[in-house]
Amino acid sequence: MPDKTVRIRRAGEGRRRPVLLAIAGDSAAGKTTLTAGLVEALGPERCVSLCTDDYHRYDRAQRRSLPFTALHPDCNYVEIMEQHLQLLASGQPILKPVYDHGTGELTRPELVEPGDFVIVEGLFPLHTKLARACFDVTVYLDPPEPTRRAWKVDRDVRKRGYTREQVLAELDLREPESAAYIRPQRAHADIVVRFGPIPGRTDPAGTPLSAELLLRPTIPHPDLTEVLQPGLSRAVHLRLDRDTDGRPVDTLHIHGYVPREESLTVEKAIWASIGAPGTRAPESLGRITVGERSEPLAITQLLLLHHLLEAAA
Amino acid sequence: MPDKTVRIRRAGEGRRRPVLLAIAGDSAAGKTTLTAGLVEALGPERCVSLCTDDYHRYDRAQRRSLPFTALHPDCNYVEIMEQHLQLLASGQPILKPVYDHGTGELTRPELVEPGDFVIVEGLFPLHTKLARACFDVTVYLDPPEPTRRAWKVDRDVRKRGYTREQVLAELDLREPESAAYIRPQRAHADIVVRFGPIPGRTDPAGTPLSAELLLRPTIPHPDLTEVLQPGLSRAVHLRLDRDTDGRPVDTLHIHGYVPREESLTVEKAIWASIGAPGTRAPESLGRITVGERSEPLAITQLLLLHHLLEAAA
Repeated sequence: MPDKTVRIRRAGEGRRRPVLLAIAGDSAAGKTTLTAGLVEALGPERCVSLCTDDYHRYDRAQRRSLPFTALHPDCNYVEIMEQHLQLLASGQPILKPVYDHGTGELTRPELVEPGDFVIVEGLFPLHTKLARACFDVTVYLDPPEPTRRAWKVDRDVRKRGYTREQVLAELDLREPESAAYIRPQRAHADIVVRFGPIPGRTDPAGTPLSAELLLRPTIPHPDLTEVLQPGLSRAVHLRLDRDTDGRPVDTLHIHGYVPREESLTVEKAIWASIGAPGTRAPESLGRITVGERSEPLAITQLLLLHHLLEAAA
Repeated sequence: MPDKTVRIRRAGEGRRRPVLLAIAGDSAAGKTTLTAGLVEALGPERCVSLCTDDYHRYDRAQRRSLPFTALHPDCNYVEIMEQHLQLLASGQPILKPVYDHGTGELTRPELVEPGDFVIVEGLFPLHTKLARACFDVTVYLDPPEPTRRAWKVDRDVRKRGYTREQVLAELDLREPESAAYIRPQRAHADIVVRFGPIPGRTDPAGTPLSAELLLRPTIPHPDLTEVLQPGLSRAVHLRLDRDTDGRPVDTLHIHGYVPREESLTVEKAIWASIGAPGTRAPESLGRITVGERSEPLAITQLLLLHHLLEAAA
């Protein structure tokens, strides 16, 4: 044994540090939808995504006899999640655990090799300081609770084999842990995204949701003041504001009720201003499901795409 | 995001580096038996063991259509194994994959938290330089091929649901990869252990196996010259020798055909000389199965126990 020292990285291997984006938020806050469009826009050969739900410590059957829900840190391998984030952030592959939401079982792990971009979505990516330190850009999804509850009922009944009553009971059960462990992550995000109806407006049912983005000065945001001069567009406007805790923020409002043509003009202007020169806004942006689009989602993804490309430059 | 730097270890956490022992060798070379006695002697609260078979990249069904066997490095997550060895060597927990030898499936991973001692047994622990650098003591199990083949047939038929013909066919299939990837690890071991009949002797069937231990000068071995003066004992003797490649080594011969009382005297003398003062040789040493003991195995384990305790001191 000529060499007894432990080396963490092989010398001269030249792995490049990927860019890491966190998308944190409560269950059914829209994390997967937001992530999917970004992965498609960047291309799966350059961008991988993973979900921190895979770090569940117990399967669904085991959780039934536990005094806490999946939203409690003790119900998750938080330390292993931190370790894997650190490995990915330094360009190394991980063997990631897999939680099957269909069956509620923990199954065979899978190899994740970081490309240029890694998107980490889930309940806990911003829970600890060590985890937060691994990210280049951090997002918290913060829909109004009635919107999120409706999304969760719809999804869990359609895709995860629960009844409506089971989902509503689970939401009530989770509320204290949501308040204690999930929502505090909002304070640690560079960008807070709220998809929802605009408070005070009485739009007819079926009106597309709007988005409000808090842009915190913790990362440099693109200068949108030229593109978004006050009064220039009904679709999008930027405002200097105060966060709920009094801290100054920029707020970007993107209105869902505006006709698509109008949003598209703004989208193109933003992309021309912040996108890579000569490129077009990727087609995949704004897609909710097959055939269903959201302009506020597209513009949110556009902004995140800009941040990812900037961080990689 | 106040802190963008990636820290690999939390400051001030004070985790102690555990002692790592590698036990490498081909399939059915006796790795699990050797390991089990050491874990029991040290206590499962201080010592964990893991098997590198868990790092199989493909399950049994997938392997049927592959052009190589489980003995090929490409059939294993070697890079993840290296990563996990490095993490364990620095005192960190891992989420270890699990290969089920009964079903041939890859299943739910399990948390491994290193205690004071970690024993890593398997086909590949000494395959790469990075892996070798993680160990404090390294062992290669090198039984004569006829002995190993007999062990493999016996175990795989009794415990893994194969027929005798299947095991023999598998042994032939594996031979080129065994020569290419497994046996070269012998050159990297501090101690090479050969359990088997003594060449040239015609002992009756059922005579317990003897052991020959090559003690390479790559780690400091205990001074056994006083205990094992030539002619003092028929059971155990030490000799200056040359390895097959001509390198000088000490060879410790432990004879299985000697009556237990005689071996036990030597065992006690060795333990008094090298064991912790005031302790007795642990009862668990030398156990092959329930009710079946091997003095050569006990004395081999005694020597390894000494090395582990020395490295931890």
